[in-house]
Amino acid sequence: MKVGVIGAGSIGLLFASYISKIFEVTIYTRTEDQAYQINENGILLRKKAIIKQSSVKALPISSWKGIEDFTIVTVKQYQLSTVLEQIKHLSKRPKNLLFLQNGMGHLKLLEEIKGINLFVGTVEHGALKENAYTVSHNGEGATNVAIFRGDFSCLQNFATKVPADFPIHVQEDYYLMLRNKLIVNAVINPLTSIFQVKNGELIQNKYFFRVLTSLFGEISFILNLDHPEEHLRQVMGICKKTAENRSSMLKDIEANRLTEVDAILGFILEEADKQEKQAPLLEIVYYCIKGKEPAKGGEL
Amino acid sequence: MKVGVIGAGSIGLLFASYISKIFEVTIYTRTEDQAYQINENGILLRKKAIIKQSSVKALPISSWKGIEDFTIVTVKQYQLSTVLEQIKHLSKRPKNLLFLQNGMGHLKLLEEIKGINLFVGTVEHGALKENAYTVSHNGEGATNVAIFRGDFSCLQNFATKVPADFPIHVQEDYYLMLRNKLIVNAVINPLTSIFQVKNGELIQNKYFFRVLTSLFGEISFILNLDHPEEHLRQVMGICKKTAENRSSMLKDIEANRLTEVDAILGFILEEADKQEKQAPLLEIVYYCIKGKEPAKGGEL
Repeated sequence: MKVGVIGAGSIGLLFASYISKIFEVTIYTRTEDQAYQINENGILLRKKAIIKQSSVKALPISSWKGIEDFTIVTVKQYQLSTVLEQIKHLSKRPKNLLFLQNGMGHLKLLEEIKGINLFVGTVEHGALKENAYTVSHNGEGATNVAIFRGDFSCLQNFATKVPADFPIHVQEDYYLMLRNKLIVNAVINPLTSIFQVKNGELIQNKYFFRVLTSLFGEISFILNLDHPEEHLRQVMGICKKTAENRSSMLKDIEANRLTEVDAILGFILEEADKQEKQAPLLEIVYYCIKGKEPAKGGEL
Repeated sequence: MKVGVIGAGSIGLLFASYISKIFEVTIYTRTEDQAYQINENGILLRKKAIIKQSSVKALPISSWKGIEDFTIVTVKQYQLSTVLEQIKHLSKRPKNLLFLQNGMGHLKLLEEIKGINLFVGTVEHGALKENAYTVSHNGEGATNVAIFRGDFSCLQNFATKVPADFPIHVQEDYYLMLRNKLIVNAVINPLTSIFQVKNGELIQNKYFFRVLTSLFGEISFILNLDHPEEHLRQVMGICKKTAENRSSMLKDIEANRLTEVDAILGFILEEADKQEKQAPLLEIVYYCIKGKEPAKGGEL
């Protein structure tokens, strides 16, 4: 089976490296330079002190023809529209696409894609891109995937064949799967970014914990959670388990990059709007992050 | 007229330095060491490139007898209870006390003081304590004062005699005077601390400005402002005028010191509570600041 990986950030490099043991992988990069560097060096995967080299073919995204049997889209949600635009202009439609974006904002974009088997997934690995062709796998986890639309078989086939140290679990309900991850991301990512603290401090600092529970309460109300206490327990459990980690959004803010706040909080704010529910905390948290993003929101 | 100045932080040093041209001033310090250093060096006042030396007598606060005709209390609100406790044990009550704390949380403490003329004031000077006996006057402003209780004449006398380059304006209504300053402080101080930006960015960054207007809306509702638009205009005007300044609360957070958040937001939250009004944004903002204060709020 030929597999395409679109996007060569930390998650793209991580997936390409692991699955290239099993599949024939082509990774598609934003720049020609990165493709060149990957072709020259392979992908280096660092896990603790061990470095493994994988030989993976790399091409710039402009050369993507969608010919692989299975394609994993790893770009950020805010880069997704460019990829989707490109699909429309391919002479041959790709057969199977797996989308690994955070949040749920991308679902409405996927609605517009016709005649392709579409899958979505959530990634629980910790990964850090060290340079154009090196990724550090610093948090072992799993990938959850589920069908969004179309035929199931290729996803099942893919998930069964991946290496045992890079597990992919097939879930029944894509909506619940994405929503559960969204809740965690919507609480931990923005608050760690505003407070500029590691994940653990959200539950260790009693004042920050007050803010966490208030924000969670609003999210729970907007998403109409049936068992909010279970979700809150999950959020707290992840804060505890990843106590020493800096969230991806905090890293983005610190590195003066765009964040995924629109994909994460933007989606929940839209839900609030549809249901005509007030969301004062979510709004203030959203604007705090937007204000810290590089464009600085422009002048008044 | 003999004048006592209690507290030798930036405002205490600034006042002692300016008014010592006219009055016989004793400044009371928290530590014996600071009193020693001021007695050795005088108070150095830096204003742009010019440094002026004033000869001011300094004593540790434990030696305060309350014998001066007029005493200015410049300690932070959270240090005030110590001073008030000391008043109770003086053999002779001081005659006239002027309190220069931020916020309005100290008013209920002043209610308990009997038989003394009490005045309150707000300071609009920018001042930075450089060391134990040096203060930089980096923002020219004025001091507003008003009677809280008792006889007016000593305050009037004091305000008339101060040097022209250090004006003190007597206001009619202490409540309106403090409240107007409180509104400005309640918006600018916490938000600049959370966003970690200079005052100007609150109105230059459109997202931060959204948060500012939401927070202001809550404050306006809780304080039952008659003309909120005028207060909002004042807040924006100060952001613009002091665009390059870092607020005192931001400096406190950066220096890992306690902030005046209880004096400022605590008071408004109590008002909300009394009136049974919801204050979700004020609460989240309050906890954000509390969480950033040095004690870290302790474990859960």
